[in-house]
Amino acid sequence: MKPTVLLTCRIILEAEKKDLEERFNVITLWGHEDPEAFIQEHKEEIQAIVTDHIFPVRKELIENLPNLEIIATDSVGFSHIDIETAKEREIKVTNTPDVLSECTADTALCLMMAVMRRTCEADLFLRVGKWFHGDMPLGRRPRGKLCGIVGLGRIGKEIATRCEAFGMEIAYHGRTKQDVPYRYYPDLQRMAEDCDVMILSCPGGPATANLVDSHILEALGQEGFLINVSRGTVVDEPALIAALQGGVIAGAGLDVYLDEPNVPEELISMDNVVLLPHIGSATVETRTEMGQLVVDNIAAHFEGKPLLTEVKI
Amino acid sequence: MKPTVLLTCRIILEAEKKDLEERFNVITLWGHEDPEAFIQEHKEEIQAIVTDHIFPVRKELIENLPNLEIIATDSVGFSHIDIETAKEREIKVTNTPDVLSECTADTALCLMMAVMRRTCEADLFLRVGKWFHGDMPLGRRPRGKLCGIVGLGRIGKEIATRCEAFGMEIAYHGRTKQDVPYRYYPDLQRMAEDCDVMILSCPGGPATANLVDSHILEALGQEGFLINVSRGTVVDEPALIAALQGGVIAGAGLDVYLDEPNVPEELISMDNVVLLPHIGSATVETRTEMGQLVVDNIAAHFEGKPLLTEVKI
Repeated sequence: MKPTVLLTCRIILEAEKKDLEERFNVITLWGHEDPEAFIQEHKEEIQAIVTDHIFPVRKELIENLPNLEIIATDSVGFSHIDIETAKEREIKVTNTPDVLSECTADTALCLMMAVMRRTCEADLFLRVGKWFHGDMPLGRRPRGKLCGIVGLGRIGKEIATRCEAFGMEIAYHGRTKQDVPYRYYPDLQRMAEDCDVMILSCPGGPATANLVDSHILEALGQEGFLINVSRGTVVDEPALIAALQGGVIAGAGLDVYLDEPNVPEELISMDNVVLLPHIGSATVETRTEMGQLVVDNIAAHFEGKPLLTEVKI
Repeated sequence: MKPTVLLTCRIILEAEKKDLEERFNVITLWGHEDPEAFIQEHKEEIQAIVTDHIFPVRKELIENLPNLEIIATDSVGFSHIDIETAKEREIKVTNTPDVLSECTADTALCLMMAVMRRTCEADLFLRVGKWFHGDMPLGRRPRGKLCGIVGLGRIGKEIATRCEAFGMEIAYHGRTKQDVPYRYYPDLQRMAEDCDVMILSCPGGPATANLVDSHILEALGQEGFLINVSRGTVVDEPALIAALQGGVIAGAGLDVYLDEPNVPEELISMDNVVLLPHIGSATVETRTEMGQLVVDNIAAHFEGKPLLTEVKI
């Protein structure tokens, strides 16, 4: 009998879902009146969970599934999975690193350029007929400016490469100095004082919660821009709203929020922000690769082969 | 007595305008009920014209100013100036090359990323509350795709550098093969068949009029994107509208139009386009540098020094 895989979300594209269905007994959490009851009904049979960054795999769920062997998340982050409980039960966890680094870096650049050059605002300016009455107000140029990257991991390095092509200087903040040709700041406050654009590409979770607070925003300053493609938890959201309202910083480009898909009304009404609905890796190409990696990890597990991208816990 | 300089447009920022006013007798074409009569009144005294890409300096105007010595345009393009008439009269023409190359290349990247990743659409998607009902449809990833640049001049080369950082392959079309590590296509149709994204950064004027017509758009194909930061004349606009409506190409990002600021209603109502109001060089930093270069050219002329950026005619 094929092992049973529980899909919690629709993130996997059709072709990869088909691939999964050919190899496993796939059951989905959607399409049921009472998902809790559905899980109860299938709890003995579920051996694998496929999830994404939205659907949390909590202690209760893991403890409720006696035969669970693997949790495969279709995301690079895994702070939505109760890793401790998984570890105790010797349940494997896999994620999808690397394949989405470039797309997420692209999203950071989309945001930075859109905020600095005011392109979303400009597109609307033209469409509502304002161009007939005068030119669009000027934007800002990235060249020569200092870009401070918080978290110079795989995504951060891809961001650095792109920003360099736009003529920016690169600095970074993180736990350790790396062998890279960029300026290292052990102190985030100091980096915020020096940089013109701060891009967040660090992991989420407790270690980085509210890392960017009112002090950091004040240090970034009234000509500074904040870009977040990391997790909403990294930024003190009320402090960011206050900073944007009060002209403490010039603008922000956000792909992530504290309580997605809820975005504070104060942000939605602002002009000096670009707000994306968490599209970090949302391209056909990358989602295809991520979905395939999820399927390959689960297949490898049940074939007794080494996992491709296991989260070391 | 200070020479008289006619400013036709408001493109020069305040600081540089002040600089100009300290050295010259500056008169402006705006703020008069009858600009034609104003010119008639000052025709003997005008020795220099400062203009931009919007205001045309036609044969009639040049011939009407007996003491005109120099025309300084605050733009890289000069197809809006009657060069032949200027040449006959030995009137100098200066433009502002180089200083705006990077900004215009940035604009091309803003457009490419916004169209491929659907960011303006995504920002609106979030703001109107659609995220509560499901995810934003997926975009496309630049990495691994072929970017075909039409016109590999200063701006085209800056575009190539940026696109490479996004993991794209680069091709180009132009009159001559250059010593660059990019694939050269002497035939535009062939390049359109091969490339995924076509970026126009060639000069305007008769030589490139309607260069991109329905055949080129068909060759670009239904997964292809067109980006134009050159001049509206380079594209057969009705053919582009038909191609976008019929799914002949996937989308377009435009900063320039045939009859600015008039943008066809058909384009304004489309989702698969990003429409910028000609913001190519519109940053505080670049407009400051451009304005300074205009002032410096005029100053150099009247001090008998070599011009900084003369258009060779």
